[in-house]
Amino acid sequence: MSSSRHDQYREEVLGRANVADTPELVAYYERLESLGTAALWTVANKIEPWEPVPSSVPMLWRYDDLREDVLKALDLVTPEQAGRRVIYFDNPGRSDVSAAVGWLYSGLQVMGPGEVASSHRHSASALRFIMEGQGAFTNVDGHKMTLGANDFVLTPNGTWHEHGVAEDGTTCIWQDGLDIPLMNALEANFYEVHPDLSQAISYPVDDSTAKWASAGLKPAGENWSKPYSPLLKYEWAPTYEALSKLAKVSDGSAFDGILMDYINPQTGGPVMQTIGASMQMLRPGEKTKAHRQTGNFVYQCAKGSGHSIINGQRFDWKERDVFVVPAWLYHEHANASDSEDACLFAFHDLPVMRALGLYREEAFAENGGHQPILS
Amino acid sequence: MSSSRHDQYREEVLGRANVADTPELVAYYERLESLGTAALWTVANKIEPWEPVPSSVPMLWRYDDLREDVLKALDLVTPEQAGRRVIYFDNPGRSDVSAAVGWLYSGLQVMGPGEVASSHRHSASALRFIMEGQGAFTNVDGHKMTLGANDFVLTPNGTWHEHGVAEDGTTCIWQDGLDIPLMNALEANFYEVHPDLSQAISYPVDDSTAKWASAGLKPAGENWSKPYSPLLKYEWAPTYEALSKLAKVSDGSAFDGILMDYINPQTGGPVMQTIGASMQMLRPGEKTKAHRQTGNFVYQCAKGSGHSIINGQRFDWKERDVFVVPAWLYHEHANASDSEDACLFAFHDLPVMRALGLYREEAFAENGGHQPILS
Amino acid sequence: MSSSRHDQYREEVLGRANVADTPELVAYYERLESLGTAALWTVANKIEPWEPVPSSVPMLWRYDDLREDVLKALDLVTPEQAGRRVIYFDNPGRSDVSAAVGWLYSGLQVMGPGEVASSHRHSASALRFIMEGQGAFTNVDGHKMTLGANDFVLTPNGTWHEHGVAEDGTTCIWQDGLDIPLMNALEANFYEVHPDLSQAISYPVDDSTAKWASAGLKPAGENWSKPYSPLLKYEWAPTYEALSKLAKVSDGSAFDGILMDYINPQTGGPVMQTIGASMQMLRPGEKTKAHRQTGNFVYQCAKGSGHSIINGQRFDWKERDVFVVPAWLYHEHANASDSEDACLFAFHDLPVMRALGLYREEAFAENGGHQPILS
Amino acid sequence: MSSSRHDQYREEVLGRANVADTPELVAYYERLESLGTAALWTVANKIEPWEPVPSSVPMLWRYDDLREDVLKALDLVTPEQAGRRVIYFDNPGRSDVSAAVGWLYSGLQVMGPGEVASSHRHSASALRFIMEGQGAFTNVDGHKMTLGANDFVLTPNGTWHEHGVAEDGTTCIWQDGLDIPLMNALEANFYEVHPDLSQAISYPVDDSTAKWASAGLKPAGENWSKPYSPLLKYEWAPTYEALSKLAKVSDGSAFDGILMDYINPQTGGPVMQTIGASMQMLRPGEKTKAHRQTGNFVYQCAKGSGHSIINGQRFDWKERDVFVVPAWLYHEHANASDSEDACLFAFHDLPVMRALGLYREEAFAENGGHQPILS
Repeated sequence: MSSSRHDQYREEVLGRANVADTPELVAYYERLESLGTAALWTVANKIEPWEPVPSSVPMLWRYDDLREDVLKALDLVTPEQAGRRVIYFDNPGRSDVSAAVGWLYSGLQVMGPGEVASSHRHSASALRFIMEGQGAFTNVDGHKMTLGANDFVLTPNGTWHEHGVAEDGTTCIWQDGLDIPLMNALEANFYEVHPDLSQAISYPVDDSTAKWASAGLKPAGENWSKPYSPLLKYEWAPTYEALSKLAKVSDGSAFDGILMDYINPQTGGPVMQTIGASMQMLRPGEKTKAHRQTGNFVYQCAKGSGHSIINGQRFDWKERDVFVVPAWLYHEHANASDSEDACLFAFHDLPVMRALGLYREEAFAENGGHQPILS
Repeated sequence: MSSSRHDQYREEVLGRANVADTPELVAYYERLESLGTAALWTVANKIEPWEPVPSSVPMLWRYDDLREDVLKALDLVTPEQAGRRVIYFDNPGRSDVSAAVGWLYSGLQVMGPGEVASSHRHSASALRFIMEGQGAFTNVDGHKMTLGANDFVLTPNGTWHEHGVAEDGTTCIWQDGLDIPLMNALEANFYEVHPDLSQAISYPVDDSTAKWASAGLKPAGENWSKPYSPLLKYEWAPTYEALSKLAKVSDGSAFDGILMDYINPQTGGPVMQTIGASMQMLRPGEKTKAHRQTGNFVYQCAKGSGHSIINGQRFDWKERDVFVVPAWLYHEHANASDSEDACLFAFHDLPVMRALGLYREEAFAENGGHQPILS
Repeated sequence: MSSSRHDQYREEVLGRANVADTPELVAYYERLESLGTAALWTVANKIEPWEPVPSSVPMLWRYDDLREDVLKALDLVTPEQAGRRVIYFDNPGRSDVSAAVGWLYSGLQVMGPGEVASSHRHSASALRFIMEGQGAFTNVDGHKMTLGANDFVLTPNGTWHEHGVAEDGTTCIWQDGLDIPLMNALEANFYEVHPDLSQAISYPVDDSTAKWASAGLKPAGENWSKPYSPLLKYEWAPTYEALSKLAKVSDGSAFDGILMDYINPQTGGPVMQTIGASMQMLRPGEKTKAHRQTGNFVYQCAKGSGHSIINGQRFDWKERDVFVVPAWLYHEHANASDSEDACLFAFHDLPVMRALGLYREEAFAENGGHQPILS
Repeated sequence: MSSSRHDQYREEVLGRANVADTPELVAYYERLESLGTAALWTVANKIEPWEPVPSSVPMLWRYDDLREDVLKALDLVTPEQAGRRVIYFDNPGRSDVSAAVGWLYSGLQVMGPGEVASSHRHSASALRFIMEGQGAFTNVDGHKMTLGANDFVLTPNGTWHEHGVAEDGTTCIWQDGLDIPLMNALEANFYEVHPDLSQAISYPVDDSTAKWASAGLKPAGENWSKPYSPLLKYEWAPTYEALSKLAKVSDGSAFDGILMDYINPQTGGPVMQTIGASMQMLRPGEKTKAHRQTGNFVYQCAKGSGHSIINGQRFDWKERDVFVVPAWLYHEHANASDSEDACLFAFHDLPVMRALGLYREEAFAENGGHQPILS
């Protein structure tokens, strides 16, 4: 028997629940509880809010603050003990599910030269965005991808994968992004360690880009039917060139500047079923307008510096800093430089929103589209 | 600062995290915490389980136990106060989110003759399954559907809708099914009360079935592009006839007997983007084998009686009883009668599992496919 | 060397070819011809007409005129000799390709009790529409369909199929529809006789309708991936009932009255990839307006009587008469009765037009939408 | 009344028509003819062949033979008179429909510096492949594409388009490819001259490649819903680089060497609905095996030299030569050089075959996959 009040969510609005507790009703509620039931009107206004209020909070993690501790993990734990040496972003509103924002997990992983993690696969979709070091590589279902700074690599749902650094490489740090929390929330998370702890590389190195990274062309006769992109690595140099070319012929988005989505070249759709990604360029001096979206975003500054205003709060960022935008909070971005562009990598759960018919977007209507900054 | 242990999830398995707390590590963990971060290896085995373990528990709610209290709501609250008079199923493992199972909400709603609820719309997809009474109706975006026992009606995501009972009807009870908890979990739940509190009926009564309930035919020139079924009502009589016909030409499913999915006749896919539904017939004497699936199920017995064994626990049901099968738990069904068929209505979140590439199914391999019953 | 003129297609319109023959040009044309080439401007206006002008002519074939001769085929040839006893509709503009209209073939087939044709398969998509007799059946890939008057049955591209009449049946006549001419034009026509001349029936009789003819329902777990409808037979009684129900809630089409497309219940699309079909009801006294479409239509009156005006020419029809509407000719229909409805079955090549992006439609804009009748 | 024999297509095969003329039958056939009908069995074996026999013949046109005459058109006709100055390939088996092969038209167009053709649009899908000259451009629906040798440009079905050469350019020759004959055969060909004879360029020059030619990326927020590629120009340099990269990681096709399809980057499908295109590289010394396909191919050698054997006939080609492979004829290719690669551009109607479910392919099974050469 619960002693708490049952009418704490009352609203004085026609069409909303508005029932005051009475002794008779409380007795009724208690009997319902004993039957494994409850009265909807006691919780209706709570579970049917007028609009989403995210439990995540906007956060920025400065690379300068974290880098030393990330490197320290090299000394503190072995890959064998730790599985992976990762310091993850622990959003204060989402600590219970180890999420950086919404149902998205992210962390910084470090590996030394010659190290290789054990191979595994899981229901979570995963990606890496390389931050520093030479010689990093990722293997996915027999394909090996070599990786440099700002390269973006996929390890999709259900694929055997592992990461490593070449013997002649240097210590490498990259950002991991996964939707482990979503998989757990949906109670659909499976995990397997590779029976041999490592997999054979059965294709030529970097064959994925050799085959699939040619614009407007595909290898004839390849019938790719998997639900994720056959292109597993998206390199920085052509990505930056693509943004530069687009900037010459497009005004871009009022909210995001020059924004390109990484796509599955076989469908034009997102790179994986549950995680999408993009790279955007804020032109010199550019300040975008605010909008809000269903869906959650994890950003990393890939080039330059600037700030973002999220739900009225300003976050200043420079290269390698990571920040998050929770669902349905207004956000806008500004480049700090009047002469150099700034680039933001992001990954997000918009593919989930879209697949379920839940994507929504709204511009900030007042004040010329710019949020007042809360002090 | 947390004083709890950080190595509580260790596993002695290659490829899994296995790091014992040391004073140095604990100090490290505390510093990470102060930076809004944490070490993945302290939670990796928790957030990457080998397979899903649902937080919901199997439950059965007997209509005989609930009916009187449901009817009593007629006296205790008005529709104006309560919004809707619903007694909802409160799964002990999911009370925090008001779910019957997984992210699915369900309840029993009661309305008296001449009552009409106020019109509203929301991000949650919703359905009704009529249990008793004459004269019930549901209005959806200008379409009015008249409803009888075992009829199944949709009120899809984003549609204006309301329910009522005709002046010359009788007290009606039906089961509501919605994915309100999922919408909240995804932080994508929007709610609106109709500006006029009710909507105009702009089409002939029951035009949805007149237009779309003709097998193998569609009105020429109708270009239906909405992401849910244009057929909004599925009547009991043709549904039962369909099962009877199928039973004559099909062996059915080893796990479900004669099982038909309600579909969107324009796509062959589920009736709504986030909720699917089915009706199944257990033939006289039929006992199915056990399997388990990602996804959650809410069942109502529409005809006859029998029992289901869920995760080794037996639940006996008869007409109008409601029970739930949580994700990844083995379940099997048995008809209690050797002479009459039994029918189970179900709704579920398989469309979510499938849209995100997460559907999985596994047969119970031992003991001839039948679970031992746990005492 | 050709002696004919090369400037016969000149048009005095800017942007069109308009080159007069000169001795120098004619010599040039002759040299081009010797090289296996020609000058585009000599044929450009011919091969790029302003709009389509069909080579087919509108035609009506009266069943009263044909029935006796169709039956006579029973005496004149055996099924073994003839393969199939069919009298086909030979459009004067399409005799070279044996088409009834456009690239569509159609004929009347007759079989006596106890006769069965040999089994074969081909690239052409095919259908039957039953006109008279009891006991007709069609077998398709192991499925047997029993057939009565106005039933419509598919024998899709690539399926083994044969027709017959039961021993205790009566002489049966039905209309065949195929796109043999299109398959030949596309040089993609393959033909095979079944190695055993007949196929085994491996499913319960009429299982296709038992499984797939239930509106808004499908057998769970059936993953139909073939490019044609799993529902192979569309019976008359439910089709007529569907039209009657639709007529109560819909104004119908200005051009076609109450028109329903036969669909693949798994996709909402046409029954086969290259042939679609429909049944329409002209309500008592209904006179539709004229429009024209890319694509060709073969009609059979299934009920009642009336007339159609095609390209200004009136064709009166009654039950069992067949008529054709060539591409891009205006057509309109009228029911002869003020008290009874009239029904027209049609099959057409709109799926080809739509698959290739070529479908177009235009209303007749003058005279209240009705064509003047050419005398 | 026809005096010809009616039994000329008899076959002595079970399941095929085999009816000898008799006086009684001939009288019957004559009466059928008077009714606008005929007996199927008199033509069944003709219209249902065992497999396709194309009416087109394999052909090769040497550029050396044609170039002078193509250039001569500059002197003989003005663009205003001719519309377009094109010498088209006139297949001896398809002269009646002005096709190079099957239902595909192709020709060589010439324009001088400063010339611009008038703008028009039509149902036919069209493409250009640039052969020589500087300064060529094509405008499509407000987009201007500048063109160099071996560039491939689309002017899709229904788009306003025109071609020209810059004032400071040189005389240009390119290959046109269209499916005008198919549009005529399907009686779906519409043609319009632009009301102003020319269209405004409303986008930055070459914006199509700036936006859409970045592999694995797309401009966010662009919702391209047209049925053809948003990428309208495919440049030679990145195409050749793509083939070179693919050759390093792929064995290629036994029949085609290193073959890449030009694709719509939004779908992974063909560039237009009715015409597809590809570029292939025959590695030094490569000799492919023979296969045959439904569908027709027009090839142009873009680089190097070699030969193809088509239906047992050898055709030697070098840069700029054009040759055709008719439907269902075996063909194989050989590079003449042991040190240089050779490249073949091709366009074809496979998208039509695939959209209608008619694509088929068969390897030549004997003689190690190589056809004997017919003398």
